[in-house]
Amino acid sequence: MRETIFTHRVEFGDCDPARIVWFPNFFRWVDAASRHFFSECGVANWRETERTLGLIGTPLVDTHATFLKTATYGDVLQIHTTIAQWRTKSFVQEHRVMRGGDVIMRCDEIRIFASGVAGEPPGIRAMAIPDEIRRLCS
Amino acid sequence: MRETIFTHRVEFGDCDPARIVWFPNFFRWVDAASRHFFSECGVANWRETERTLGLIGTPLVDTHATFLKTATYGDVLQIHTTIAQWRTKSFVQEHRVMRGGDVIMRCDEIRIFASGVAGEPPGIRAMAIPDEIRRLCS
Amino acid sequence: MRETIFTHRVEFGDCDPARIVWFPNFFRWVDAASRHFFSECGVANWRETERTLGLIGTPLVDTHATFLKTATYGDVLQIHTTIAQWRTKSFVQEHRVMRGGDVIMRCDEIRIFASGVAGEPPGIRAMAIPDEIRRLCS
Amino acid sequence: MRETIFTHRVEFGDCDPARIVWFPNFFRWVDAASRHFFSECGVANWRETERTLGLIGTPLVDTHATFLKTATYGDVLQIHTTIAQWRTKSFVQEHRVMRGGDVIMRCDEIRIFASGVAGEPPGIRAMAIPDEIRRLCS
Repeated sequence: MRETIFTHRVEFGDCDPARIVWFPNFFRWVDAASRHFFSECGVANWRETERTLGLIGTPLVDTHATFLKTATYGDVLQIHTTIAQWRTKSFVQEHRVMRGGDVIMRCDEIRIFASGVAGEPPGIRAMAIPDEIRRLCS
Repeated sequence: MRETIFTHRVEFGDCDPARIVWFPNFFRWVDAASRHFFSECGVANWRETERTLGLIGTPLVDTHATFLKTATYGDVLQIHTTIAQWRTKSFVQEHRVMRGGDVIMRCDEIRIFASGVAGEPPGIRAMAIPDEIRRLCS
Repeated sequence: MRETIFTHRVEFGDCDPARIVWFPNFFRWVDAASRHFFSECGVANWRETERTLGLIGTPLVDTHATFLKTATYGDVLQIHTTIAQWRTKSFVQEHRVMRGGDVIMRCDEIRIFASGVAGEPPGIRAMAIPDEIRRLCS
Repeated sequence: MRETIFTHRVEFGDCDPARIVWFPNFFRWVDAASRHFFSECGVANWRETERTLGLIGTPLVDTHATFLKTATYGDVLQIHTTIAQWRTKSFVQEHRVMRGGDVIMRCDEIRIFASGVAGEPPGIRAMAIPDEIRRLCS
């Protein structure tokens, strides 16, 4: 099982008046880690895959996150990311946000591979997972 | 059971290259809706409660969110918020993000009432739910 | 000269460990106020203008901002927005962020009307200001 | 004159529906670069300087930014930061955001060294620039 690591140093502006990371920022970094996983596996960026496969990205449909310890600015976080399960039109991606040996946050996501649907407003639709992507990521 | 409604109009900058709301922004608004709930119930701001009760806020310890429909800029979202359960040192807050009659996202949160812990770095600790706050919110 | 007002209530998560608004957030709201100006003047959203005029938005090319007073969560801010000058392919938009009678921040922006340029990566190009838009906004 | 470099890789979520960086995000990174400058020069974090010097940070009072080229996700940006001028209670910090040899954005900031002012709401006050900090940064 492939695992990638995405590093983020927590900044002053990532923290709130309680002087700890404001939690929505964790989701910013987890989303970057999710994309980083595909990038490290050799998947082209979504602009390229839109041209070749009609694939515009991997939007989130479900997420469950647990916050175990607080973090503050100056901390260096490493997000360990894997794909725990491949389904027909979706996959489960797991992220562990670590600070050294401590788990700060865990997050299990269900994401789809999406194509765009023209219209006003624009929409998205789940597509079958492209074989080439699944092969690159396994 | 008290229910409050927090309104947010989706802005251009809330959306990503797929032209839909970038999901971490939903958590920004859900966090605002969480605070808005207490505010509407008559709970003072956290600066005031820090002085009177030692209470600095209600950090998140667990969240489970489901994204049912996409939203884009120009949409007006209404977040319906309730407290579904009071526990000894935590509570379950539920949010439904609506666009008219459509549910866009659901989110169940476990939050604690926290006091600050001095130190380097600063920490937080769960405290018993203050009676006065529970009474105001019920 | 048209003036519009965009209202934002400062949230807990908009503030930093110094307990005041983290300044990049002012630019989030100023950008929303900029779009709000066009919207109030009757200009269609950028998805619609992309179809009809090739216009994808009004990206910023220059901004000068002065921060006069701090703001914190619970504050209600009103952003007063006007177009101070129309040039051939750009315009000057001025924003005053007020809290009651106090000016919190001032910001002068130069923005262009942009069309998209296909390519990898995608680009943008300034276009002549569409007559219809100038008329709606004057 | 000291110059530091802060690196940021642009993420999908940093970009807007026009598929380029949404400009308020540049200010997030410039603010991180500003703090990074002091950090590289050996200045302790603001929690430590609050204890030793009463200094809580370097809030912005004025900024002028020019956006020269667009950037998009996948781009690696390097922010070059210097202090161009020391005044009695403020300083001018200059940032150049580069992508390889291209200047993407320039930004000149006036910042102060601030101490906190107790009260409701909390405030800040400019303080004379501490000798030790000026020495470390020169």
